[in-house]
Amino acid sequence: MSARKGPKMLSKNQIKFANSLKQKKEREALRLFVIEGSKMVKEALASSLKIKHLFATPDFIRQNDLEHYPVIQEVTVAELERITSLMTPNEALAICEMPSYQLVASELKNKLSLVLDDIKDPGNLGTIIRIADWYGIEHIICSEQTVDVYNSKVVQSTMGSVCRIKVHYTDLALFLANNRQNEKIPVFGALLEGENIYKKTLSSEGLIIIGNESKGIRETLIPMIDQKIHIPTFSHFKQSGEEAESLNAAIATAIICSEFRRG
Amino acid sequence: MSARKGPKMLSKNQIKFANSLKQKKEREALRLFVIEGSKMVKEALASSLKIKHLFATPDFIRQNDLEHYPVIQEVTVAELERITSLMTPNEALAICEMPSYQLVASELKNKLSLVLDDIKDPGNLGTIIRIADWYGIEHIICSEQTVDVYNSKVVQSTMGSVCRIKVHYTDLALFLANNRQNEKIPVFGALLEGENIYKKTLSSEGLIIIGNESKGIRETLIPMIDQKIHIPTFSHFKQSGEEAESLNAAIATAIICSEFRRG
Repeated sequence: MSARKGPKMLSKNQIKFANSLKQKKEREALRLFVIEGSKMVKEALASSLKIKHLFATPDFIRQNDLEHYPVIQEVTVAELERITSLMTPNEALAICEMPSYQLVASELKNKLSLVLDDIKDPGNLGTIIRIADWYGIEHIICSEQTVDVYNSKVVQSTMGSVCRIKVHYTDLALFLANNRQNEKIPVFGALLEGENIYKKTLSSEGLIIIGNESKGIRETLIPMIDQKIHIPTFSHFKQSGEEAESLNAAIATAIICSEFRRG
Repeated sequence: MSARKGPKMLSKNQIKFANSLKQKKEREALRLFVIEGSKMVKEALASSLKIKHLFATPDFIRQNDLEHYPVIQEVTVAELERITSLMTPNEALAICEMPSYQLVASELKNKLSLVLDDIKDPGNLGTIIRIADWYGIEHIICSEQTVDVYNSKVVQSTMGSVCRIKVHYTDLALFLANNRQNEKIPVFGALLEGENIYKKTLSSEGLIIIGNESKGIRETLIPMIDQKIHIPTFSHFKQSGEEAESLNAAIATAIICSEFRRG
């Protein structure tokens, strides 16, 4: 009957701790990140992610049978608001361990993977992870300057796919040079001057490079591309001149993945 | 030599006027909207849009030979900041007349058009307009509850495509009922239980309905759909159960337009 008592309050330290994870430096030091919102937390619970702390409202706990979940702490919506990154009201927030995926090049054989060269916009990275999940792409290999996958905006815009897709950060020049020496997985690059993707026979094995939102794929990686591909425009305006245009990076990724998978 | 004098100051009334256009009510009353940012304003200048006022920095004016442009007013970056909706520094802002496109159903014959049922997110609408532009789709017919195309976030995320694509707002039930009676353009709807889009022969004439981000296409419009289509997932996770998932509305639109156009 005393709904506002003890168990529903977050301690000052808990608040400080949860909010510290909004910073990349803290996330990396502790190897922890935040997943929040009802749908997302449900996906985290159903995934192989290890949840270290789970803060949830009484309703969320009841609806998801979490009364006996080991790291559960019942909180009010008002308490959740003190640690959230979301704009809208919220029911649950989980602090998860960063999974430590190994990037083993031989595991990329006979499958499609995405390679992201400095994707900077959190919404774009989140959307690309969601697209990868939809199209059964298990691995995304990012340049070291790509936005952090555990940034709250990225996590949020994956709509849960961050729980399933393996995102790696590495030196792309080195990674692609090693691939050329060893695994020899064909490398595709999305470029303005590539071959018409609709007319090309595409393989079910490949590393598909997507470039930065404004600069595209960096010069030094271009020689690593075996097959340059391009999504042609059907616009009268664009064909009749004006400056060269491109699609948004996430949109281009969606269309490319669709083409590779449609068979 | 006196760079900070008279011509570079905006009057209080100008500031009030430009800022009032951040509100839909004011935009509709005056039939005006704002396009800003260097790239966007260049696209507006190259388009058929009528520009009523153009505020730009000396550099922008010089680079684009606008010294004698009829409605030009030279301003400093600091002055532009008083009327901008953008977060980052800016060089030009144009106040444009809303074009008055007539929705003439017979003009939609023998071509593809998009029909948006309550798209609410400004970024999604902007991205969909950009996709339409890329795929040579001239008309977008929106439900009356779809977010306003002249909202600054929508305009911005079109990356200039708002200058070319004709966006209409109308009662979709009425519009589709009339189409069934008269033009009989085939109506496609993106639905979870539709036919696999990759296995279907698609036409070069059609109205393609895209549903709301969370609710999909409203119940009452479903009977108006002639052909239900669906983008299948290639995910092991999704196929093995869990709740029904869907792609983001703009991503789905991109993949659908790509499939219709690839031939």
